[in-house]
Amino acid sequence: MVTDRLTAVVTVADDGGSSGRLRRELGVLPPGDLRMALAALCGDDEWGSTWSEVVQHRFRSEGELHGHAVGNLLIVALWELLGDPVAGLDWVGRLLGAQGRVLPMASVPLDIVAQVELDGVTSTVRGQVACALTPGRVQAISLVPEDPPARPEAVAAVLEADWVVFGPGSWFTSVLPHLKVPELARALHSTQAKRLVTLNLAPQPGETDDFSPQQHLEVLRQHAPELPIDVVLAETSIVDDPGALEKSAAALGARLVLADVAAADGSPRHDPRRLASVLDEIFLQKR
Amino acid sequence: MVTDRLTAVVTVADDGGSSGRLRRELGVLPPGDLRMALAALCGDDEWGSTWSEVVQHRFRSEGELHGHAVGNLLIVALWELLGDPVAGLDWVGRLLGAQGRVLPMASVPLDIVAQVELDGVTSTVRGQVACALTPGRVQAISLVPEDPPARPEAVAAVLEADWVVFGPGSWFTSVLPHLKVPELARALHSTQAKRLVTLNLAPQPGETDDFSPQQHLEVLRQHAPELPIDVVLAETSIVDDPGALEKSAAALGARLVLADVAAADGSPRHDPRRLASVLDEIFLQKR
Repeated sequence: MVTDRLTAVVTVADDGGSSGRLRRELGVLPPGDLRMALAALCGDDEWGSTWSEVVQHRFRSEGELHGHAVGNLLIVALWELLGDPVAGLDWVGRLLGAQGRVLPMASVPLDIVAQVELDGVTSTVRGQVACALTPGRVQAISLVPEDPPARPEAVAAVLEADWVVFGPGSWFTSVLPHLKVPELARALHSTQAKRLVTLNLAPQPGETDDFSPQQHLEVLRQHAPELPIDVVLAETSIVDDPGALEKSAAALGARLVLADVAAADGSPRHDPRRLASVLDEIFLQKR
Repeated sequence: MVTDRLTAVVTVADDGGSSGRLRRELGVLPPGDLRMALAALCGDDEWGSTWSEVVQHRFRSEGELHGHAVGNLLIVALWELLGDPVAGLDWVGRLLGAQGRVLPMASVPLDIVAQVELDGVTSTVRGQVACALTPGRVQAISLVPEDPPARPEAVAAVLEADWVVFGPGSWFTSVLPHLKVPELARALHSTQAKRLVTLNLAPQPGETDDFSPQQHLEVLRQHAPELPIDVVLAETSIVDDPGALEKSAAALGARLVLADVAAADGSPRHDPRRLASVLDEIFLQKR
């Protein structure tokens, strides 16, 4: 099954790097994660791949542009011109020949607040960069503002979907925030779509040090206790105890699918084609 | 006659604003005048006009991006990625659906050095911004470096042209510099193309204060004494003494064409459609 009816709903809480600077300087949504998703969906002809390289290009200098990604500047310019974040992203999608659509989860920039435990003491840290750098262990996240307006297009996409896929990605700062935007969380709970969780291939330093696959699911359950999951998908080679993981999945209502979806080079990334092919089998109920 | 076989050969000596900053920060050609030419050639459908607005958009802020034109950043990114100024401009041309091609006159950033007279004393000022701001009267210009490499594509375009059009534009900083790039000047002299000079509608404060149309032609002759001109085109309403201007044109070997080519709003700009239509008649020998 090849589909371009694909919508990426992206967290807008980044406060570091090029995105953080743009957010502070121009008061816009942080564009970086949106740009990354658009580039990933680019057409594979010369046009799409060239513009994808352009939007991913970063300036390197001793000066004021150093570190800015060109696509971030392009997205922000379209936002300023068109006054509509979704229309701006759709134009970049057309430029890239993107297969699918990329939407921000909320209409306003967000801050992630993490509850962190260190040596038995619990404290909070604010901001995605601070969350990634804290020596403590993240236990839960919330958002500031607490009740941000969801993007209606993102809510609609969830309600109209056949499948909703959570992850892979930074667990606390990219995957779980969707469950903390109230309207979006309601849509994720009430949609008729089936729900699938793709587990990460490795814990993420700073965010999920030493987390087992089971702990990832446990944290998801804590953030959305009522959210039913249909399928948990995990790379075979990272699962030490399939029985325990199966039990954790069952606690969410899900069956466990183990598959070879890791990159061939041994790095802790998914191979996009393998992952797509396994998702395809699951969506078509062949697996 | 509608043609897209149109090549703009653009001076690369700007050292002010967004272009000047990019030139200093990243060591690239100043992109601003190239961007303006590309935007002027953009397609008039929604795609072309939207991307044209994007490339012309300038950031406004209290921060480091303030004043940068988005198209300048895009052009520079393509230059960094592709390593070829002309290929980069061609990609932006394709993005805009540009009718024609925009080329830099030289392969390296240039500085304009102006010989300036003030109260009977002659001095030199260096840089386009300094030339525009000097209280003195510009008398002649030269380039640093003195013998910059011309872009071969620009030389080829001049040699293959049917018509070469000088002006309208900033006389000392946009029109005359072409005659100071040796290879390009040789091509402008040796081409089989016919040569047309479009006179500006008004003197330019700083550069050509109080210049009469005749003085514009005289300065051109001083910078290229051997360059034959076929046609001098001037807006009827700015010519006080048609006989004198006819004589100045004849000194270059040219006939004078007077026409209504000014913008209808009375501003000292050409009306693009009127100018195009008169050029068309001249090129087709109907005028």
